[in-house]
Amino acid sequence: MEPYIRTAHYHETDQMGVIHHSNYLKWLEEARIYFLDECGLSYKKMEENGIISPVYEISLQYKYPVKFDETVKIYLELTKYTGVRFEFEYRIINPEGKVSVLAKSTHCLIKDNKVISVKKELPELHEKFMKFIEEYEKNNS
Amino acid sequence: MEPYIRTAHYHETDQMGVIHHSNYLKWLEEARIYFLDECGLSYKKMEENGIISPVYEISLQYKYPVKFDETVKIYLELTKYTGVRFEFEYRIINPEGKVSVLAKSTHCLIKDNKVISVKKELPELHEKFMKFIEEYEKNNS
Amino acid sequence: MEPYIRTAHYHETDQMGVIHHSNYLKWLEEARIYFLDECGLSYKKMEENGIISPVYEISLQYKYPVKFDETVKIYLELTKYTGVRFEFEYRIINPEGKVSVLAKSTHCLIKDNKVISVKKELPELHEKFMKFIEEYEKNNS
Amino acid sequence: MEPYIRTAHYHETDQMGVIHHSNYLKWLEEARIYFLDECGLSYKKMEENGIISPVYEISLQYKYPVKFDETVKIYLELTKYTGVRFEFEYRIINPEGKVSVLAKSTHCLIKDNKVISVKKELPELHEKFMKFIEEYEKNNS
Repeated sequence: MEPYIRTAHYHETDQMGVIHHSNYLKWLEEARIYFLDECGLSYKKMEENGIISPVYEISLQYKYPVKFDETVKIYLELTKYTGVRFEFEYRIINPEGKVSVLAKSTHCLIKDNKVISVKKELPELHEKFMKFIEEYEKNNS
Repeated sequence: MEPYIRTAHYHETDQMGVIHHSNYLKWLEEARIYFLDECGLSYKKMEENGIISPVYEISLQYKYPVKFDETVKIYLELTKYTGVRFEFEYRIINPEGKVSVLAKSTHCLIKDNKVISVKKELPELHEKFMKFIEEYEKNNS
Repeated sequence: MEPYIRTAHYHETDQMGVIHHSNYLKWLEEARIYFLDECGLSYKKMEENGIISPVYEISLQYKYPVKFDETVKIYLELTKYTGVRFEFEYRIINPEGKVSVLAKSTHCLIKDNKVISVKKELPELHEKFMKFIEEYEKNNS
Repeated sequence: MEPYIRTAHYHETDQMGVIHHSNYLKWLEEARIYFLDECGLSYKKMEENGIISPVYEISLQYKYPVKFDETVKIYLELTKYTGVRFEFEYRIINPEGKVSVLAKSTHCLIKDNKVISVKKELPELHEKFMKFIEEYEKNNS
């Protein structure tokens, strides 16, 4: 899958002269929504159907700061999937090809305050997730 | 009424080394909510009762930048009130007593997608607004 | 000039279910930087040369809220230019063609804490600004 | 040490009706700066002396969402310290006493683009850090 492309805005800088570290969390969210979109799932429609996808856990390793006006590529991979919970890994790559941020996040889907089974409730998404997991496992075995 | 006191956070700075100009809009919102609270009106409860208070218009004059860790005082006055629409004026004063930002905003209350009359729907708030307006007009005549 | 295209992010929404009103200020900044870029002036390089462009005044009229995942067009026009100060007007147009936000902002350029003359210090930008002003005046006379 | 007290702002909510998960990173930063302040170290002065304290790693577990207008307590502990690197752990506790967020972050100090030894460059801070570590180890042995 193509990476999510993002240019760092001026309003995202802080007085260290680099992108404030909290903004990368926002970029990861944008990349997830882009990824789901590419999977044929509109996050907007999902929410309109009463399904939300909160974050359980997130971790970031800051390797190299991104600066204003730099365009980064955000690579996202589905690395775990239980039918219910799913985990993404992210690499934010700066214009020189350096790794800026490595990150990982865990999610589930919630409807009416209950965790739902992706497998049962969104079978088409389940199929796509299964394919991504197979691909990931093939590449990493 | 006492001013709203606010300390500028590190994450609110930008690479000019000052508070990014978009953050003052957030501070004004905080000051409005503080003001309504002091009027005995919880914005949270208001929203739970289906009433929201969107912004019609807002204007800001940037006089002197606020820096990280500076504590400012935000003075808010109710300067116009029609029974439906209301206007606030704000002065953000930096620690040295200089005017940092002057601002003005216009609002109404909305319920079920319709503008409502503060006078009819929230008579207690109406009374308070009337007192503030009288005070403002007395001080400015 | 082509409008600046922007898609509303999830992290820009608030609990009213629309884009929080402070975010439009950030979008206007993005549009200005895009505009200067189209004028051949990189804001990044300008800052590296010690020139910053703070906001003097900004005013916004909120007409119609933008929602998550909507792509808006931001039209920017240079409407005043004195050789030193310059004013932009903005229209944020939602996907249905409705005006979401109208705005206006005034700026100058600052170097070594002093307001500088665009005409003297950045003659190429001055030429471009003069053309835009002529065009604007022709269209609005 | 007393916890850092923080009230959730309206502009920090998202359309799920809770505080957007990226904002907790900002709260943790505020808590760190508060902590260093309580240690007698002004982050502002430190930066004026050319020392910055970037984030190496950060991880968050989201347990229970914070809502608008809720006041949370943020407990911060220094849990590791090597003389150079230091690690904080955080608990964000909501008004009902529930754990909202657990987090951990690793930092160092940088001067002239080089990691510096806290022990050598800031001996007073080193002493305080050593005390906190002793206390932490006593409480957790």
